[in-house]
Amino acid sequence: MNRGFRGYIMVDQVTIQKQVVVQEQKLKDFCNKVWMKLGVPPQDAKITTDVLVLADLRGIESHGVARLPRYYADLKNGWTTPTNQSKIVKETKATAMIDGGQSLGQVVGHKGMQLAMKKAKETAVGIVSVRNSHHYGIAGYYSLMALEHDLIGVSMTNAAPLVVPTFGRNAVLGTNPISLTAPAGKERAFVLDMATSVVPRGKLEVYDRQGKKMPPGWAVDKTGRGTEDAHTVLDALSNRLGGGILPLGGEGEEHSGHKGYGLALMVDVLSGVLSGAATGLGVDVNKEKPNVGHFFMALDPAAFRPLDEFKRDMDRLARELKDSPKAEGQSRIYVHGEKSYARMEKFRKEGIPLGPKVVEAMKQVGTEIGVPWLG
Amino acid sequence: MNRGFRGYIMVDQVTIQKQVVVQEQKLKDFCNKVWMKLGVPPQDAKITTDVLVLADLRGIESHGVARLPRYYADLKNGWTTPTNQSKIVKETKATAMIDGGQSLGQVVGHKGMQLAMKKAKETAVGIVSVRNSHHYGIAGYYSLMALEHDLIGVSMTNAAPLVVPTFGRNAVLGTNPISLTAPAGKERAFVLDMATSVVPRGKLEVYDRQGKKMPPGWAVDKTGRGTEDAHTVLDALSNRLGGGILPLGGEGEEHSGHKGYGLALMVDVLSGVLSGAATGLGVDVNKEKPNVGHFFMALDPAAFRPLDEFKRDMDRLARELKDSPKAEGQSRIYVHGEKSYARMEKFRKEGIPLGPKVVEAMKQVGTEIGVPWLG
Repeated sequence: MNRGFRGYIMVDQVTIQKQVVVQEQKLKDFCNKVWMKLGVPPQDAKITTDVLVLADLRGIESHGVARLPRYYADLKNGWTTPTNQSKIVKETKATAMIDGGQSLGQVVGHKGMQLAMKKAKETAVGIVSVRNSHHYGIAGYYSLMALEHDLIGVSMTNAAPLVVPTFGRNAVLGTNPISLTAPAGKERAFVLDMATSVVPRGKLEVYDRQGKKMPPGWAVDKTGRGTEDAHTVLDALSNRLGGGILPLGGEGEEHSGHKGYGLALMVDVLSGVLSGAATGLGVDVNKEKPNVGHFFMALDPAAFRPLDEFKRDMDRLARELKDSPKAEGQSRIYVHGEKSYARMEKFRKEGIPLGPKVVEAMKQVGTEIGVPWLG
Repeated sequence: MNRGFRGYIMVDQVTIQKQVVVQEQKLKDFCNKVWMKLGVPPQDAKITTDVLVLADLRGIESHGVARLPRYYADLKNGWTTPTNQSKIVKETKATAMIDGGQSLGQVVGHKGMQLAMKKAKETAVGIVSVRNSHHYGIAGYYSLMALEHDLIGVSMTNAAPLVVPTFGRNAVLGTNPISLTAPAGKERAFVLDMATSVVPRGKLEVYDRQGKKMPPGWAVDKTGRGTEDAHTVLDALSNRLGGGILPLGGEGEEHSGHKGYGLALMVDVLSGVLSGAATGLGVDVNKEKPNVGHFFMALDPAAFRPLDEFKRDMDRLARELKDSPKAEGQSRIYVHGEKSYARMEKFRKEGIPLGPKVVEAMKQVGTEIGVPWLG
């Protein structure tokens, strides 16, 4: 099962065999009820649920409802405020700075992107910087919002340290994703949604469960040297012993790992430094005030040229790539977003496959809080 | 000699041994005289020269004065207009669209970035899209301009096809660079300036000259399969037989080559599609109207938070990375731009090393046009 072409987790054969298939609406109803029981207003519950379920629909399980138990715990601990406490603290016609007030990252993120889009419609471009937020789910949710308004959308966030800088031995940066979307005409929109690490943590977990050796160039051990042993890396990461995932481009400079490191750092500059959020080692989603930072941009292509011409050329470029000759043994060239759209259509029709551990954890939350699973 | 940490060419031992060392000002004087003989006004000659020589100073020889003979030929052929014919064709408070009028890419790029910065000072952000331009040299020249005004700078350009999309066998996209700069306080500014390919073409040329095998994951041959033979790849590229350089992340999806491919495509969307310039296979710098597209952005951090706080946190993040433990066998972690700043200081003091072929080609231009080499 080929699930590449976006930067998050891959499902392995083992998991698939035990999957439970759930209809989108049933899953959403369950999540909404959980949030509302915790004091989240209906409209904010809906946003939080939509972000999680969209991740599952697009095949990014690591950022889907699998995260519900963590968000649940944060709300229960009072680490996340159930009502939206975010405030615009600084604003110009084209920019805004939002303090998230420790509210749900999805609710804050949604507000940030909406504000960026409003500004883009009035001023051609809107840039919104967010601090004091939480884990906001998939970066792509927010950039995808822009497509409904024929805007180019950008979404970035910093994240807890997992990625080791080139020549380092400890994880200092997060998998800091970059997402950019651009509307097309007859073709699917361009939807780039990628972690700046070579692989997501979830991929190491798959190799660990299967007891398989990782390809070289994915991770380093606590000496900072390349390793193929996923278990050791995950163990060292959990216990903060050093080591971690490599940036896109891998170890050292031979395959330009310094470029992936640079992209991860760029995301931290735009998400963390620009907003005054936590950065680098300071980003810790497992503490009371994670102070995660986000960056949102919306840009109106019609400020530059007629929208129909922009879309026509998006189509032409996509077709040029897809129609170009294939490598031996390959039958198709993809444009970013295509695989996720196909998966979304399939899962909307056939139901969303969830791993047994994910279902178990959600059932437990449901029991604790009095919301029956798929009831 | 370690020359990584930015996305262009690496100098090999062989070249270094035969290098000619030239003082910055002498080199600039020669270039300026060549441009002016061709009808380029003094202020535009200066910009064009500055971009080329800055590339050499920063160690990106492939984009330095080595390009002078090509620009010279384009001007002589009438493919590039010596006077600046660029025009703002559409404008809002925060954005502008420039038609380059086939003028020198450096002159058009400089104008584009200056306009973006002017808008950023007035509106917090400025985005300028450029079509109908030429090869503009290093992306970093323009983003570096922003630092002088304490702005965040972004510069991107599309380029002639050299990069093969994931699962493809032909080069469709350019090495499409991304550059982003952000001002710091006591530390060096963050200067990311990277091609979105795993390596630049120049690196293949070095391996070809030395008859060395390339590491796997750099390039594919005309069947679209990985190869370690640089000569075959360069030959096939020159004769448009297929094959080419791989995007950052390498072949297929195992090391996330699709992410580098996505970044290259993103740059083409923002530089080519947004402006209505050529895109993909259409970008050809060796023809009369290359119609290259650029993207410039300037963003004022002070619109989000006090500038001194922004700079303080830039410093803190840079120090955190640099002070973090080193991998076994490594003595230093770099922040992007540091190596180039060090090289620039060295070359400004000791002179700029130029390869013998570069010097020979420039002397020939000088003879043709009546400008004595370093005279």
